[in-house]
Amino acid sequence: MSSSKPLFERVALIGIGLIGSSLARVIRREGLAGEIVISTRSSQTLDRARALGLGDRYTSDAADAVRDADLIILSIPVGAYAPVAATISPHLAKGAILTDAGSTKGSVISDVTPHLPRHVNFIPGHPIAGTEQSGPDAGFDSLFENRWCILTPVPGTDEVAVKKLARFWTACGSTVEMMDAAHHDRVLAIVSHLPHIIAYNIVGTADDLESVSKSEVIKYSASGFRDFTRLAASDPVMWRDVCLANRDAILEMLGRFSEDLAALQRSIRWSDGDALFDLFTRTRAIRRSIIEAGQEVDAPDFGRHPEIAKGESAKNEG
Amino acid sequence: MSSSKPLFERVALIGIGLIGSSLARVIRREGLAGEIVISTRSSQTLDRARALGLGDRYTSDAADAVRDADLIILSIPVGAYAPVAATISPHLAKGAILTDAGSTKGSVISDVTPHLPRHVNFIPGHPIAGTEQSGPDAGFDSLFENRWCILTPVPGTDEVAVKKLARFWTACGSTVEMMDAAHHDRVLAIVSHLPHIIAYNIVGTADDLESVSKSEVIKYSASGFRDFTRLAASDPVMWRDVCLANRDAILEMLGRFSEDLAALQRSIRWSDGDALFDLFTRTRAIRRSIIEAGQEVDAPDFGRHPEIAKGESAKNEG
Repeated sequence: MSSSKPLFERVALIGIGLIGSSLARVIRREGLAGEIVISTRSSQTLDRARALGLGDRYTSDAADAVRDADLIILSIPVGAYAPVAATISPHLAKGAILTDAGSTKGSVISDVTPHLPRHVNFIPGHPIAGTEQSGPDAGFDSLFENRWCILTPVPGTDEVAVKKLARFWTACGSTVEMMDAAHHDRVLAIVSHLPHIIAYNIVGTADDLESVSKSEVIKYSASGFRDFTRLAASDPVMWRDVCLANRDAILEMLGRFSEDLAALQRSIRWSDGDALFDLFTRTRAIRRSIIEAGQEVDAPDFGRHPEIAKGESAKNEG
Repeated sequence: MSSSKPLFERVALIGIGLIGSSLARVIRREGLAGEIVISTRSSQTLDRARALGLGDRYTSDAADAVRDADLIILSIPVGAYAPVAATISPHLAKGAILTDAGSTKGSVISDVTPHLPRHVNFIPGHPIAGTEQSGPDAGFDSLFENRWCILTPVPGTDEVAVKKLARFWTACGSTVEMMDAAHHDRVLAIVSHLPHIIAYNIVGTADDLESVSKSEVIKYSASGFRDFTRLAASDPVMWRDVCLANRDAILEMLGRFSEDLAALQRSIRWSDGDALFDLFTRTRAIRRSIIEAGQEVDAPDFGRHPEIAKGESAKNEG
């Protein structure tokens, strides 16, 4: 995107954490906006964004930030959407596109829609990208590269606006997929919300043991446990809000997980080696598919051992 | 270790998978043995070890391999220990050290000890190192660097032999820790066995869903799920055997995990945001401790984004 006219004249970023600050960086790099306005409630975070030079203008007043913006992106915890939508709605420009990066979509639609004037194009979105870190320092301009971005426009949404937003995400390096909000919430419940909840839970269980000390858990964590601590180090406010906002789909997935775990536990108790071997074998194929789909690094141990030449240790078996 | 006399005259490696082949490589690099003898049941794996030049001599007969060896290391699934111990016992040299790299220690002691002659020093061991890959190609000579190696000698074991084995692991780059077998099994149940079982289980649950397709699970796996697929891609035979060999400790940890998960599920159902926030906050500190202990990379997303300069994104907050 080095053409003369940027895709948007003014982008307002509401929230400047990992996602917002990564957006600011890629928008700047690709020249996707004439002006980047950054808004966040915390004056400390706003100062940090300014120090990093992430935008052209900074304000703690979201209503001020959205004025005359033709693209507004909410990158804040989903529990904060309703009050922010109420604050910005009277100030949204005619024809503006309002979108977001929230991890739940049904709740976002029901929290935001009632506040909006009819002349605004609200197109909920969710870039499937992130790390366990947060805040404006954590962002980087390649975060969205080779990742999917899901848009969940409600029926009747202006197609020109949807296409324009899709072009924006494509320019950020992502591939855009359309989905209805309810299906999004079920898909994300299994691929994202359940893994985070399980990771938080197992780290909590280990932290509570009396028979094994905390220092032992830390010392020997390379044997598996440390993998879970990454997801369990994610932003607590964000994940509290996700759990509350996607409750029904999460409870369904938790129910299935617990049933399966009870069956697995029974196989262990009754020494059913065949059942264990069957499960442990079919799960192996799924990782291979994820690597082939370009959604995972093709290196053992997530590439934690950079000294191992890629490919040298790729082909082997049990 | 570039001194003239190696620590051992002849090392016999029984099993030449990820662990055995990493040992072969580091023994060679550090000059820890005058001769490396490699033995494995599978002729295909033995041929591969020969093609890789991992040892000095190769045999599919474990009894032949251990003859005149002063160090014998079993790196095979723990379910295979009893028959292998029966096979090699009559051929073990007087004063030889027999050790292993198995993930369970109580079962190993009860499976091996009854077969052994009194003139052999049996010192069970467990290097806390590995990747999700297996086979002789998967090994590398730095696998044990900056990792712990736990030894669980039974009371009355010859201290000179224990010291010599500890020197061996130190030369491989590890720090040696002594522990009794029962405590080892409880520690590993929480830091290693439970994480693997939970990972296998969640990948199985996702694989079974009707409402979310397998291709969706794979496409959107970068949102959390893919982390679990690494552990769930581990060797099925090894993990079947671990589950059967450390049943009691694993069942205890599974019981605690499930209780905690039921409480967490209830917090979600009843929208207890404070309980969720409290759990999600205290788990964050544990990852920081693991990084500070040198047991995890200090980079977001396990360093999957090598383009992010280390440190640049290290200090930030939610």
